[in-house]
Amino acid sequence: MKLLLSYLITIILVYFQPTDAKVTEDWDSIDSRTVPDWYDKAKVGIFVHWGLFAVPGYDSEWFWNEWRAQGKIDVLEFIKQNYPPGFTYQEFANQFTGEFFNATEWASLFKRAGAKYVVLTSKHHDGYTLWPSKYTYSFNSVDMGPHKDIVKEVGDAVRAEGLRYGLYHSLLEWFNPLYVADVANGGATTEFVDNKIFPEMVELVNTYQPEIFWSDGSWDMSDVYWKSTKFLAWLFNESPVKDTVLTNDRWGNNTNCLHGDIHTCIDRYNPGVLQAHKWENAMTIDWRSWGYRRNSNIEDYATTKQLIELLIETVSCGGNILINVGPTKEGHIDPLYQERLVSLGEWLSINGEAIYESHPWVKYQNDTLTSGVWFTQKNGFTYASVLDWPENNVLKLRAVSELINSNTRIYILDGNRELNFTGDNGIVSIEMPDRAGVRSNDAWVIKIQ
Amino acid sequence: MKLLLSYLITIILVYFQPTDAKVTEDWDSIDSRTVPDWYDKAKVGIFVHWGLFAVPGYDSEWFWNEWRAQGKIDVLEFIKQNYPPGFTYQEFANQFTGEFFNATEWASLFKRAGAKYVVLTSKHHDGYTLWPSKYTYSFNSVDMGPHKDIVKEVGDAVRAEGLRYGLYHSLLEWFNPLYVADVANGGATTEFVDNKIFPEMVELVNTYQPEIFWSDGSWDMSDVYWKSTKFLAWLFNESPVKDTVLTNDRWGNNTNCLHGDIHTCIDRYNPGVLQAHKWENAMTIDWRSWGYRRNSNIEDYATTKQLIELLIETVSCGGNILINVGPTKEGHIDPLYQERLVSLGEWLSINGEAIYESHPWVKYQNDTLTSGVWFTQKNGFTYASVLDWPENNVLKLRAVSELINSNTRIYILDGNRELNFTGDNGIVSIEMPDRAGVRSNDAWVIKIQ
Amino acid sequence: MKLLLSYLITIILVYFQPTDAKVTEDWDSIDSRTVPDWYDKAKVGIFVHWGLFAVPGYDSEWFWNEWRAQGKIDVLEFIKQNYPPGFTYQEFANQFTGEFFNATEWASLFKRAGAKYVVLTSKHHDGYTLWPSKYTYSFNSVDMGPHKDIVKEVGDAVRAEGLRYGLYHSLLEWFNPLYVADVANGGATTEFVDNKIFPEMVELVNTYQPEIFWSDGSWDMSDVYWKSTKFLAWLFNESPVKDTVLTNDRWGNNTNCLHGDIHTCIDRYNPGVLQAHKWENAMTIDWRSWGYRRNSNIEDYATTKQLIELLIETVSCGGNILINVGPTKEGHIDPLYQERLVSLGEWLSINGEAIYESHPWVKYQNDTLTSGVWFTQKNGFTYASVLDWPENNVLKLRAVSELINSNTRIYILDGNRELNFTGDNGIVSIEMPDRAGVRSNDAWVIKIQ
Amino acid sequence: MKLLLSYLITIILVYFQPTDAKVTEDWDSIDSRTVPDWYDKAKVGIFVHWGLFAVPGYDSEWFWNEWRAQGKIDVLEFIKQNYPPGFTYQEFANQFTGEFFNATEWASLFKRAGAKYVVLTSKHHDGYTLWPSKYTYSFNSVDMGPHKDIVKEVGDAVRAEGLRYGLYHSLLEWFNPLYVADVANGGATTEFVDNKIFPEMVELVNTYQPEIFWSDGSWDMSDVYWKSTKFLAWLFNESPVKDTVLTNDRWGNNTNCLHGDIHTCIDRYNPGVLQAHKWENAMTIDWRSWGYRRNSNIEDYATTKQLIELLIETVSCGGNILINVGPTKEGHIDPLYQERLVSLGEWLSINGEAIYESHPWVKYQNDTLTSGVWFTQKNGFTYASVLDWPENNVLKLRAVSELINSNTRIYILDGNRELNFTGDNGIVSIEMPDRAGVRSNDAWVIKIQ
Repeated sequence: MKLLLSYLITIILVYFQPTDAKVTEDWDSIDSRTVPDWYDKAKVGIFVHWGLFAVPGYDSEWFWNEWRAQGKIDVLEFIKQNYPPGFTYQEFANQFTGEFFNATEWASLFKRAGAKYVVLTSKHHDGYTLWPSKYTYSFNSVDMGPHKDIVKEVGDAVRAEGLRYGLYHSLLEWFNPLYVADVANGGATTEFVDNKIFPEMVELVNTYQPEIFWSDGSWDMSDVYWKSTKFLAWLFNESPVKDTVLTNDRWGNNTNCLHGDIHTCIDRYNPGVLQAHKWENAMTIDWRSWGYRRNSNIEDYATTKQLIELLIETVSCGGNILINVGPTKEGHIDPLYQERLVSLGEWLSINGEAIYESHPWVKYQNDTLTSGVWFTQKNGFTYASVLDWPENNVLKLRAVSELINSNTRIYILDGNRELNFTGDNGIVSIEMPDRAGVRSNDAWVIKIQ
Repeated sequence: MKLLLSYLITIILVYFQPTDAKVTEDWDSIDSRTVPDWYDKAKVGIFVHWGLFAVPGYDSEWFWNEWRAQGKIDVLEFIKQNYPPGFTYQEFANQFTGEFFNATEWASLFKRAGAKYVVLTSKHHDGYTLWPSKYTYSFNSVDMGPHKDIVKEVGDAVRAEGLRYGLYHSLLEWFNPLYVADVANGGATTEFVDNKIFPEMVELVNTYQPEIFWSDGSWDMSDVYWKSTKFLAWLFNESPVKDTVLTNDRWGNNTNCLHGDIHTCIDRYNPGVLQAHKWENAMTIDWRSWGYRRNSNIEDYATTKQLIELLIETVSCGGNILINVGPTKEGHIDPLYQERLVSLGEWLSINGEAIYESHPWVKYQNDTLTSGVWFTQKNGFTYASVLDWPENNVLKLRAVSELINSNTRIYILDGNRELNFTGDNGIVSIEMPDRAGVRSNDAWVIKIQ
Repeated sequence: MKLLLSYLITIILVYFQPTDAKVTEDWDSIDSRTVPDWYDKAKVGIFVHWGLFAVPGYDSEWFWNEWRAQGKIDVLEFIKQNYPPGFTYQEFANQFTGEFFNATEWASLFKRAGAKYVVLTSKHHDGYTLWPSKYTYSFNSVDMGPHKDIVKEVGDAVRAEGLRYGLYHSLLEWFNPLYVADVANGGATTEFVDNKIFPEMVELVNTYQPEIFWSDGSWDMSDVYWKSTKFLAWLFNESPVKDTVLTNDRWGNNTNCLHGDIHTCIDRYNPGVLQAHKWENAMTIDWRSWGYRRNSNIEDYATTKQLIELLIETVSCGGNILINVGPTKEGHIDPLYQERLVSLGEWLSINGEAIYESHPWVKYQNDTLTSGVWFTQKNGFTYASVLDWPENNVLKLRAVSELINSNTRIYILDGNRELNFTGDNGIVSIEMPDRAGVRSNDAWVIKIQ
Repeated sequence: MKLLLSYLITIILVYFQPTDAKVTEDWDSIDSRTVPDWYDKAKVGIFVHWGLFAVPGYDSEWFWNEWRAQGKIDVLEFIKQNYPPGFTYQEFANQFTGEFFNATEWASLFKRAGAKYVVLTSKHHDGYTLWPSKYTYSFNSVDMGPHKDIVKEVGDAVRAEGLRYGLYHSLLEWFNPLYVADVANGGATTEFVDNKIFPEMVELVNTYQPEIFWSDGSWDMSDVYWKSTKFLAWLFNESPVKDTVLTNDRWGNNTNCLHGDIHTCIDRYNPGVLQAHKWENAMTIDWRSWGYRRNSNIEDYATTKQLIELLIETVSCGGNILINVGPTKEGHIDPLYQERLVSLGEWLSINGEAIYESHPWVKYQNDTLTSGVWFTQKNGFTYASVLDWPENNVLKLRAVSELINSNTRIYILDGNRELNFTGDNGIVSIEMPDRAGVRSNDAWVIKIQ
C-alpha cells in the first residue's frame, strides 16, 4: 500500500507541477522537476550499442577492459592469435568501416519492432565518439572509420519514423589519461571533467537534441566529481531540449536508483514488483553482450517468447523496456536480431493495446493463482497477459475476481473474440478459444471490461 | 505408370548389379553402375558454400563474375565505394581470416539439424581452393587466408559425428587464363583440364576420400572437353572411395539431368512429381545467395516452415534435400542460420520417421483432395505430412482411402497419439488432436498403418 | 657598423646579465633574459621531422593540408588512385609502424655527422604527437602506430651521445575543430589554447625537459591568443629546464625575427650577412620536403658540397645550422641521408676547428676579392673557409690583408700543413698545396694566425 | 698463352660460324652456336631484382627461404614482432603496391648510368611472377599487388631508351609443392617442369622477346630434369628472338661455368684474370642483398669508387658487369642507388671510351709494376685505367713499355690532354696533370696510341 501511495503521488506530482519552474543544481530540485510524460507512455525502446568494440566483435563491448585491465585469458589469447604484437585497441578504428550502415533501414526496423524510442551509444567507455566531437579529435566516427556523423544520421532517421531519440553517453573513459589521473588523485583534480566531459556533453545536447540523456560510466566517482547536478540544471533549464528531455540515474557512484527521471539501477534491472519510481529494464537480446559478437551462437540469444515475457513483466511493474541491438562493424543488424525484432513487432501489432500507454494495476502485478499472468490497465480495462497456454484451454485467475460483475465481458485480443467465463469461489475460469485459430504463439492477452 | 516402372527398374538394377564390375569410360557403363544405397536413405544433407566470396559477402558467391564479367551496377558501385582503384578479387584472400572456424562446431550443428551428410565447396568458380592443392599454389586456404586445410578439418569433424562427407568441385574457373584460352579455342586445346583440373581432382579424391563428388561449373564445355567419363571411370574403378562414392550429373553442358548417380539438374531443382532417377534438391536458406552476405535481411531467409515444406515435398518425390549454409569470412555460421538448422532438427527429431530411409509412394506423391499433404512410405506404413493445420481440426484425405480397412490404425507422430477417423465416399476424415497439445508448429505427420 | 655594435651588445648582455633574475610575462623581459651559451657554441644541429606524414611520404610533410585545404591536384590524384573513397589522413596512423626505429642508431649517426644538438618534431601541424600526451588521447605514437614514446626514446639516446635535445612543437593543428572554432571567432575564444595547447606544452617540458623549445605554427594568430609570454615566463622561471633552455621566435604572427632567443624567421633563413641577433638556418637535405618522401630522387637532395657551403656561410654570419632529416615510416634514415650526414661529419672532423665555438669576424663575413671564401674567428685565429679550389692553386684574399704581419703564419687545416704566402697591394696570395694530397673534396679551411 | 689461344678461337668461332645452322638438343651443339655480338660490346648492364621480397625488405631477397627453410633467427624474430601468428609470405602480395613504379623513369636512369642492357627478375625463387603468367594464376603482379604487367612495361621503356632487354627467370620455386614433390622423387617425376616451368618459359619468351634469358635456380637438379637443352634448342631455333638472344650457364647443377653463352658461375663472379669464355660479373650495389632492404645503412653500399673499380677489373678480364638495383615495394629506386648510378654514368661519360666495345689486352690484364692499373684495347689503342692517383703525380707502368716507340703519344681521357712520359729500363713514367684540374675522382684512364 505504501508503494501504491508512492506511485500515485509520483503521478500526481508529475502532472500538477508548474512546467516553467527552473531547477537548481541539487538533487532535490532536479528530482522534483516535472518529467515529460511521453516516455512513460512509450514503454518500448530500442537500445543500440555500436562502436569500435564491434570490430573485434568478441566477448563483449567491454573487450578493451577485459584485455588491458582484467587480463581475461580468452581475450588475451584472441589478441595474441590474431594481431601482431603491440597492436592497440584504437587501431581497430580503421576497420570500423560501416559500409552497410543505413540509418533509415535501422529506424524502419525499430519502428516495425513496435518501439517508440531509440537510444544510441554516442560514446562508450572506450571514448570513441560516433559524432565529430571537438573534444575527441581524430578518435571519432568522422575522422576514423565510417567517415560519418552517426549520431546525426540515426537521429534524423529515427525522428523521420516518428520515434523519439535518446543518446547514451559514458562519463568515464577507461584509459583516458586525463581521467586516469583524476581518479588517481581521488578527484582532487577534475581536468577530465572540465576540459573534456562537461563541454562534450553540452556539445552533444546542443547539436543533436536528444530527448533522453542516458548517462553511464559514473561508478568510479561521485556526482560531485562529475558535476552532474550542474549539467542537469543546464540540461533542464537552458538546453534546447529542456521541455522534453529525460535522463536516467547514473550520475555518480551515489545516484543509481536514487536520482534522475528514470531509474535504471543495474543492467537488466527487472525488480518483478511495482516500483515507486519510473524505471527502465535495459536488457539485451544477446544475453552475453551489448555489442555485436562475431561468433555468437543461437543459444546466446533471447527467444521471441523470452523477449515478450520480459516486456510484459516489465510493463506490469511500471517499467519501460529498452531492448538492445548490437550492429556489426559494417553497420548491419544481423538477421537474427531482425527476426526477434520483427517477431516482437508482430506480437505487439496484435497485443500492443495492453502495453502502450498502459498503467500497472497497482494492486496486483501478476495473478495470485496462475503464475505467468501479468496485469496492466488502461481506459477502464484490465489486461491479463498470459505467458503459458492453459491446460485444457481453461484459464483460471484469482486476482481479477474482484473486477467481475454481471456486466463484465472478457475478450482475447488475438482475433478480438469474446470469451466465455465463469466465476466461482473467487476464481474466474475463462474458456480459451481453439488454439488452432490463434495467431500468436508466445503470449496472449485477455481483456477484461 | 511409366514413371513408376522406371523407378522400380532403377531400384532393381541398382540392387542386383554385380558390385565388382568395372565401369568403362562411357556414360552407358557409368550410368549402369551399382549406386551405393547410403545416399538414398540419408535424405537430408547440408551444403556449405565457403570461400573468398565470403569476404566481400555482397550480392552472392558469384560476386567476382558479377563484377568483372557481368558488370553488375551495384557490385561495381560497391567496389568503387569501398576499395582503392585497381583492387582485385584475389586480394580479398588476406581478409579471409577464418579466425572463428571450428569444424567440430559446424559438424555438431549439422548433426543437430538432422543431416546425414555434408557437402563442402572444396573449390568454387573463383579457383581458390580450401585445401593446399599442388595445382593451385599460393591461392589456397593454407597459403593465404585461414592458414588451414579446411577440406581436411571439415571432413574429419563431419565423420567424427557419423555423417558422410562430400566435396563440391567446380570444373571451370571463370578467369583462369588457361581455361579462358581453352574456351577461346573452342576446346581444341585442353591445357586447363590436362595440367590443372584432372590432376587436381585426382589429388582431391585421393587425399580426402569424399563419398560424394559434387561436380559443378561444367556449362561452357562438353563432357568430352572435361574428360569426365575418364575421371569417373577412375573414380569408380580405382579411387580409394570407389565402393561408396556417388557423383552428380554436372559433367559437361550435355550431361545435366541425364547422367551420373544424382540428378541435380538446376539449382533448387524441385520437380514436384516423382522422378524416374534419384535426384537432389540443392537449395539455400538465404534465397538470394549460396555464400554469406554481410548485409542480408530477415526477409531473404527461408522460414523454418518453408524449409520443412521443401524437405517434405522433395522427399515425397524421390529426392534428397541439400540445404545450403554460407559461413562468414571468420568461419562462423550466423545465428540465423543456426536457428533454422536447429528448428529443422527439432522437427525431424519428432517427425523424421516419415523422412529417413523412406520411399516415395509411387502411386501418389500428394493428396488428391487436400493440398499440402505429401506421402512417403516405409516398412508397410504410409506417412502423410500435413503442411497446414486443417480447419475445424479434421483432415480430409482422398488418396489414402484405398489403404484403409478395418484393421487400419492412424497416428500422429507428434506425441505418438492414435487418431479417430472415418472413411466415407472415398474420403478419409481424420480427427486431429487439440492443437494446443502439439509441439510442432510447421507441419505434422499422420502415420497410416 | 650598427650591426657590429648590436652584435657586441647582445653578447655583452648575454654574458653579464645576472642569471637569477625572473622574467615577467612580456617580451621586453623575456628578450632580455640571459641566454644559455651552449647553443651558440654548438653551431650544428640536426632537425628530425618524423610523423604521420611519413606514411604517405608524398609531396611533403604538409600533405594533409595540400590535400584537404589547398586541394593540390597531384595530392588529390595520389589519394584517389591509392585509397578507397572517404579515406582520412588520420587513418594513416595504423601504418606508421616504425618497426626499424632505433633511437640509438639515430643518435649515433647524428653525432657522427658532427651535430651538437638534435631537435625532434614532438608534434607537427597534423596534431599527432610522438609522445603519449594526455591531451591527445589515442592520436599519438603510443596509442596508434609505433606503440612507443618516441620523444623519450630519442631524447635518451641523444643525451647518451652527449648531444643536447630540443623539441619542435606546433602551436596550431590545421584541422583540430577547437582550433578552427577559435580562429573562426577571431580569437575571441581560446578553448584550444586553454584546454589543449598550454597544458600540453607544460606536460611536454616537464616530462622530457627539452633544452630547445622550438615553436612553430603560430602564424594565424597573435602571441596574445597563444599566451606565449605566459608560457615562456613559466618556461624560464619555473620549468625544470629554466637554466639551460632556449626558444625560438615563432610565438605568434607578430613575433618572428623579433622575439625569442633564436631567430628562425622563415624556413631556410639564410641572410648572407652578419645578424645582430642569434639566428638559425633551419634547412633540409631534401630541398622539397622536411618529411620523408617515398618517391624522392637524387636531384632533390643537397649535395655534400652544398651542405658544407650552407654550413660555412651560416656560421660566418652568426647563425647555427639545423639540418633536417626525414626518417621513413618504418623509422629508418634512408642511406642517402646517411651518406650526406657521414660526409658532413668527415668534413667537420678535419675542418671543424673553424666552426665549433667560433665567432663571426664582425668586420668581414666573406672575402672582398675572391667569392666563396667565408670567415670565422676563435682564440685569436681567423679561419677562411674556401668553397672553390683556386685556379692555379693560388688563393688570393683581400679582407685578411690587414691581419698579416711579419709574424703571421698560415695553415691549411686539411693535413695541418703550413702554406707559403705573399702580401702585396692589400692582397694576400696563398699557395695551396698539391690538390692530389688533400683529403677534402668540397671545401678547405685556411687558418691565419 | 693457352687462354689467349682459347680466347681467340672463341672469337673466331663466333664470327665465322654460319648463322643459319640449327642447334640440336645437346650442349655441344648449343655451345657451338654463333653468339650474337651485341652483348660483348655492351659491357655494362643493370640487373633489377624486384618482387614480393621488397615488401618485408628485410635481410635479403631470400627472406622467405631464411624464414621457412633456414629458420634464420633474426628473420623469425622480425616476423614474430611484426605480423600476426600464421602470417604467410604470400600474404605480402597485397602490400606489393608499386604505386610509384614508373618504367620510363627507371629506363632513363639506367641509360644515364651508362648501361647498355637491363635484366629484370621476371620471377624469383618465390614463384611470384611480374607478368600475368597463365601458369601462375593469381600469384602474379597483375592479379595481386601492382596490377600491372611489369615485365612488359619495363621492356617497353628500356627498349624506348635504346637499351637491350633481358629477363631473369628462376627455374626452381622453393616451396612450390609440385617442385618439392619432384625433388623428393629425385627427379623421377617431372610434373613441375612439364606442367609449369617449360610452358611458362615459352610463354615468357614468346610474349616479351627477351634478348638475354638469364636462368637461375637450377642447383637442386640436373639439366636433364630441367629439360634445359630442349628449351635452349627451341629458344635458338624457333623462338622469336633466336637471332639475338643469349643465355647464361645456370641450367642445372652440372652446367655453371661450363655451358651457355655467358658464364656467370657464381654470384659476384670476378676471376681477376682473363677468361677463355665470355663471362659476366653479376654483382650488387648493396653488398648484402639483391632485393631492397628497408633498413639498409650507408656502410652496406658499394661506393662509386668501388663500383668503378669492379667495372674496370671485370672488363679488363673479358667480362661484362651486371650491376644490381633493388627497387622498393612502391616501385621506386632509392636515391642512394640513384646517386651511385648517376655517378657511374658521369664517370663513363668521360672514360667510357676505354670500356664500351673494348677487348681485353690478351697479354696483360693489369700492370706488372703498379697495382690498380687495368688494361683494355680498342681500335689500336691501349687503355690503362688507373684506380689510385700516383704519388708525386707520376704514373710508372711496366707492362706497356713494349708498346712504346717514338711515335707513341699518351693522353688522359679526362680532359683529353696529352701527357708527357719517359721510358727507361722497361718502365714508362707518365706525368699526370694537375689533380686540381681533373674532374673524375675515382679512376682515370690513360690512353696509349
